[in-house]
Amino acid sequence: MNRHTLVQQIKEKGTYLCVGLDTDISKIPMHLQQQPKAVIAFNKAIIDATKDYCVSYKINTAFYESMGVKGWEAMEETVAYIPDTHFKIADAKRGDIGNTSSHYAKAFFETIPFDAITVAPYMGEDSIRPFLEYENKWTIVLGLTSNKGAADFELLELKDNQQSNSRLYEKVMHTVAQWGSPQNLMFVVGATQASAFENVRAMLPEHFFLVPGVGFQGGSLEEVSTYAMNKDIGLLVNASRAIIYAGQKENFAEEARVIAAQYQTEMQGYMNLLYK
Amino acid sequence: MNRHTLVQQIKEKGTYLCVGLDTDISKIPMHLQQQPKAVIAFNKAIIDATKDYCVSYKINTAFYESMGVKGWEAMEETVAYIPDTHFKIADAKRGDIGNTSSHYAKAFFETIPFDAITVAPYMGEDSIRPFLEYENKWTIVLGLTSNKGAADFELLELKDNQQSNSRLYEKVMHTVAQWGSPQNLMFVVGATQASAFENVRAMLPEHFFLVPGVGFQGGSLEEVSTYAMNKDIGLLVNASRAIIYAGQKENFAEEARVIAAQYQTEMQGYMNLLYK
Repeated sequence: MNRHTLVQQIKEKGTYLCVGLDTDISKIPMHLQQQPKAVIAFNKAIIDATKDYCVSYKINTAFYESMGVKGWEAMEETVAYIPDTHFKIADAKRGDIGNTSSHYAKAFFETIPFDAITVAPYMGEDSIRPFLEYENKWTIVLGLTSNKGAADFELLELKDNQQSNSRLYEKVMHTVAQWGSPQNLMFVVGATQASAFENVRAMLPEHFFLVPGVGFQGGSLEEVSTYAMNKDIGLLVNASRAIIYAGQKENFAEEARVIAAQYQTEMQGYMNLLYK
Repeated sequence: MNRHTLVQQIKEKGTYLCVGLDTDISKIPMHLQQQPKAVIAFNKAIIDATKDYCVSYKINTAFYESMGVKGWEAMEETVAYIPDTHFKIADAKRGDIGNTSSHYAKAFFETIPFDAITVAPYMGEDSIRPFLEYENKWTIVLGLTSNKGAADFELLELKDNQQSNSRLYEKVMHTVAQWGSPQNLMFVVGATQASAFENVRAMLPEHFFLVPGVGFQGGSLEEVSTYAMNKDIGLLVNASRAIIYAGQKENFAEEARVIAAQYQTEMQGYMNLLYK
């Protein structure tokens, strides 16, 4: 999916919600756990219930890999089920030497036709380039993440750098931005890092940010939207557990729909403020 | 596998070679490519031919994921085939928020019973802790990698740090070392970074280093061994392409054996120098 289509979807539907399919078989409703294809049944019900309120689905590969071969089957089947109108993200946080990253790009852009993959930046340019070579595919590089451990390395101050990129995550985002364009590159910026949003938006006015950390992790959708929305909206805000585990009974999908709809209503409000 | 057993294997066999099973179906001998289970047939032949000359096998997950579900089947079957005497590494370079890293740990320590997994440090402590919680399993954290891109971020100089950890990779290794012990934590240090080996060994005298980059990438086994061997040897040196693609004909396994044996002979020599 190219940027024009993504922005069009966001504006038409009045939402920049990404639903995270972090499907853990031990946390889905009991009546589904007994089914032979429980994860698929759960994901399909969640997708059907939420697709009108979101523009993207994010599959967290860890949850599928922990189930082994059956998990990879479920991941493939889930991606095949997501409508083409929705931006499909492999939240895989891969990254390796160039020769190896090419195989990861093949895995998540060809073998399973995601639109985007999250990538870890530690190993530098040749670990990221192979992903950027695919047309109409997106590389989403970790910038400032939503977890407590972000403080350990991402926030380290660098020596002799310009003030605008004095911390590691700023240097990473500033440097990586030169390897791609706002047409094929996004960054992960955690919603729990609201104070950093004005800064990163000033540094990268055009790029989309994938924003995890609202809902269960406690980040504020209002702060993120206020600080970081740009003329193309420029945000995909992810919620996983708050939506997919909203209910635990037979009507779990309906409960997920209610929460997704609440996010959409709130997002429509912030979009209206921007365009008023 | 615990450290005692690993060190015993190394000393008994006179080798600290790790064979990297970066199996790419387009690069294996033509006569195997037509088989329904070509990757497994190739891996089994390579393992049979090289197991006397190495103490470890490293599976690069990217090469298997690029084949989708069949690749994961091949990965599981390969790990099951590797003898229990050999240290089994998932070269997966994972890392995510704690809740997600727990699922990666389950994937590579339980669902597929590897002894170790490589982990990317960017996201900090809670992204690494879940791996360290497993008894008799190892977390191998990226320190200074073998690729050109290592210079982009890993070598950045930090502000206000002690001289011994003034660069990002040094800070990472120094910090992460405090989250585990030499009994459950190793670091990746690329063979192409020979000038850094004295420094990292001085900083971390006890830890094992997993060393990629000899062979195809041009690193020197002699330099690595001279600078970084400790009393327990403390090194697992990986070679992938140089061994597994040594031959392209019917006798490919025999050719792989010859190269693996050459590495073993050279390694035995460096071990003899240490103990003489």
